[in-house]
Amino acid sequence: MRNSHLALIGLLLLFAALPATAQSNFDSVVIRRISDEILRNGKAYENLRVLCKDVGPRLSGSAGAEKAIVETARMLREAGADTVFLQPCMVPRWVRGAREEAYVTMAGGKRQPLRVVALGNSVGSSKEGVSGTLVEVNDFAELERLGRSGIEGRIVFFNHPMDPTLVQTFRAYGQAGTYRSNGPSQAAKYGAVGVVIRSLASNVDDHPHTGAMRYNDSFPKLPAVAISTKDAEMLSAQLQKGAVRNFWFRSNAQMLADVPSFNVIGELRGSELPNEIITVGGHLDSWDLAEGAHDDGSGCVQSIEVIRVMKALGIRPKRTVRAVMFMNEENGLRGGTAYADAAKLDTGRKYIFALESDAGGFTPRGFGVSGTPAQFRKVASWAPLFHPYGAADIVSGGGGADIGPLRSLGTALAGFTPDSQRYFDVHHAESDVFEAVSPRELHLGAVVMAAMVYLVGAYGL
Amino acid sequence: MRNSHLALIGLLLLFAALPATAQSNFDSVVIRRISDEILRNGKAYENLRVLCKDVGPRLSGSAGAEKAIVETARMLREAGADTVFLQPCMVPRWVRGAREEAYVTMAGGKRQPLRVVALGNSVGSSKEGVSGTLVEVNDFAELERLGRSGIEGRIVFFNHPMDPTLVQTFRAYGQAGTYRSNGPSQAAKYGAVGVVIRSLASNVDDHPHTGAMRYNDSFPKLPAVAISTKDAEMLSAQLQKGAVRNFWFRSNAQMLADVPSFNVIGELRGSELPNEIITVGGHLDSWDLAEGAHDDGSGCVQSIEVIRVMKALGIRPKRTVRAVMFMNEENGLRGGTAYADAAKLDTGRKYIFALESDAGGFTPRGFGVSGTPAQFRKVASWAPLFHPYGAADIVSGGGGADIGPLRSLGTALAGFTPDSQRYFDVHHAESDVFEAVSPRELHLGAVVMAAMVYLVGAYGL
Repeated sequence: MRNSHLALIGLLLLFAALPATAQSNFDSVVIRRISDEILRNGKAYENLRVLCKDVGPRLSGSAGAEKAIVETARMLREAGADTVFLQPCMVPRWVRGAREEAYVTMAGGKRQPLRVVALGNSVGSSKEGVSGTLVEVNDFAELERLGRSGIEGRIVFFNHPMDPTLVQTFRAYGQAGTYRSNGPSQAAKYGAVGVVIRSLASNVDDHPHTGAMRYNDSFPKLPAVAISTKDAEMLSAQLQKGAVRNFWFRSNAQMLADVPSFNVIGELRGSELPNEIITVGGHLDSWDLAEGAHDDGSGCVQSIEVIRVMKALGIRPKRTVRAVMFMNEENGLRGGTAYADAAKLDTGRKYIFALESDAGGFTPRGFGVSGTPAQFRKVASWAPLFHPYGAADIVSGGGGADIGPLRSLGTALAGFTPDSQRYFDVHHAESDVFEAVSPRELHLGAVVMAAMVYLVGAYGL
Repeated sequence: MRNSHLALIGLLLLFAALPATAQSNFDSVVIRRISDEILRNGKAYENLRVLCKDVGPRLSGSAGAEKAIVETARMLREAGADTVFLQPCMVPRWVRGAREEAYVTMAGGKRQPLRVVALGNSVGSSKEGVSGTLVEVNDFAELERLGRSGIEGRIVFFNHPMDPTLVQTFRAYGQAGTYRSNGPSQAAKYGAVGVVIRSLASNVDDHPHTGAMRYNDSFPKLPAVAISTKDAEMLSAQLQKGAVRNFWFRSNAQMLADVPSFNVIGELRGSELPNEIITVGGHLDSWDLAEGAHDDGSGCVQSIEVIRVMKALGIRPKRTVRAVMFMNEENGLRGGTAYADAAKLDTGRKYIFALESDAGGFTPRGFGVSGTPAQFRKVASWAPLFHPYGAADIVSGGGGADIGPLRSLGTALAGFTPDSQRYFDVHHAESDVFEAVSPRELHLGAVVMAAMVYLVGAYGL
């Protein structure tokens, strides 16, 4: 045992059952120890390197996803989890196939190739590809105005930019996201033959960004691809000049049968209330185009770090802490659903709190919390403890896709909120690589997540 | 005039002379307009590209610095400044000469080359270079313990890391900075022949970081170079094993005679109190190794953006706003000194407030303010207006190197505080390039700077 452990245990004895202010002072000391340990000896960054560089892309059902399960189970054991286990779930298996091709034919007859990526869950085109006049629309209202006569037999180009004036980029993503999710079926409703969307990205650059879409079974399934924001601007300008004759693309994507997969779970058993479960997690699957560094390798390695730092400092939580690597957030949410389904059957235990990190490994700003007013007040009362780490913005409302299904059990949910300015530069694109993550930002995120888990572990919710 | 101008002027008339809450509502509307305009149409990022890619490195007295003067004067005119003028100052002219060379000779006789960079203002070695046994010290206390018998004729290796546990990286920089600034003369005091320092960097990587040092005239001037943090770790490990025989380096740096240069100033004349001056600035010079994107191209283009956005929105401040590109912050502070000297002679005007951005173009967190308690309280009372932009952390104490000399005139000072986690990855190293700056982070910084200037412009200080 290192000296720092002895000192911390000494403090734990010293501060036991003290009045509120002293308790808060004690908590601030514990959190400082957590911070010092992670900023000095954190393993999250090295674990992220492994997940990005040794494992790589890990879409549900892929060999990468299987490797990621093995690697994170190992990381959890090395972090010191008492128990590491796999929780089964069936996952969809969408495959991109050979890379997509596309070109635009200009009025003069010149063909200009464009980089496109198929949207997740979309069907491929025929072998010959799909070809048609390109109709640009900004939104669904414009699509409806054009109607069947303006759309039928054509390729719809949804060119809805993320609103740059929204300081919280997730709000802009929420607004523009519907064109990716629902655009293909909305266009099919009016007889379109294919769909091209402007990538959901904050900046004008060269990367096409993928992401999930959903077909509405009432309409034909159209092949759908994304182009980069730069190409979207170019296409729009050329269309306005009447300089575009035709658009062609080929996608080789297909949805195969479901396959078995797993959530990966590591547990530190609570010392006093082991049947009260605190869940902290991220999602293990990533899109196939890149390394899934911010989305969501970061959330996984930060959750593992929560276990590691507690073990390293000899902090044994009163309540059980579980780090969960959820499978299949990107295109099915099967892991999150399976976790909540298992929790419902696990009647001897109470899932009191779940925290998700799925907004990137950026510098911490705070948390969004969904629970009863009393639960929110309790978490918000801890804001001063987070201030030294830049994470005192505790707002009402928040959680995460994977932990969302726990809400029906009455679990209080929280989403870790890092700074959002750079997330949609890399989100779902080939640029979401290890090198885009700052080790200090990643580790500070783990610090405030561990601090939140420590507080709920100590005081319940 | 665009519709947005008319609407804003309408608002200005509507809200004139309203009670405090309505006034604050009005201010929040103006600041929202500022934010929308910069996030939608900001020119700071494109101006930064010009400063980084077309101008490039711009150390005081260099051709790059001259080009930067011409370019930023143009940018200020294009931004709509009423007046753009150059303010003369003499600057030191330090030149690196041919790139440095170094190698370590291992105990077995093998020579391993290392990348080193001369510290700014340092003298070069002789043509033959300097060679000696390497003595590693962590701090000045250890240097003193070794004394003349342990140091004489040797090369001192200051291996003092930036403390990773300090969340505010500038505090760690402040602590470790003395080994770069004062290490060479302290080592000379005990008869060393040369100095190698561990780069002041937050992370362990391959870039050597330069930066200014100062000779104490009581001791011989030793050549001094920095090595990367990774090489520092490697050297330290090898030294501990007794595996290092000798260190050799050659530096070709020299300090030439002072040359004339300029601060670049653009002004928006105040509508009611033109003789009250608000200064907003960054420094135009950068180290010679890189593009000076974060240090401090960002501060320059953000300051220009403050002028641009006011002009674009038709906001005519009551008080005069000056954007100042200070020359020679890095190795002499001559520009900042000249500006304050001119202000002292400018008795008809009052320099009420100065804001500097010299901590990188990162996402905003707040401001540090130095003034009277009443001035601080006034600025701090505006914190809620900055909250939507993530910049509500208004703390007492702060400013900037260039505006520091204004303090003796009673000017209230403020430093813009962006997030500090990534700054010392790139600071003074070849990695401080345009690509390391996020356009949204840069522009949000400009938003909160413009908001602060708008508020002081409207209400004084």
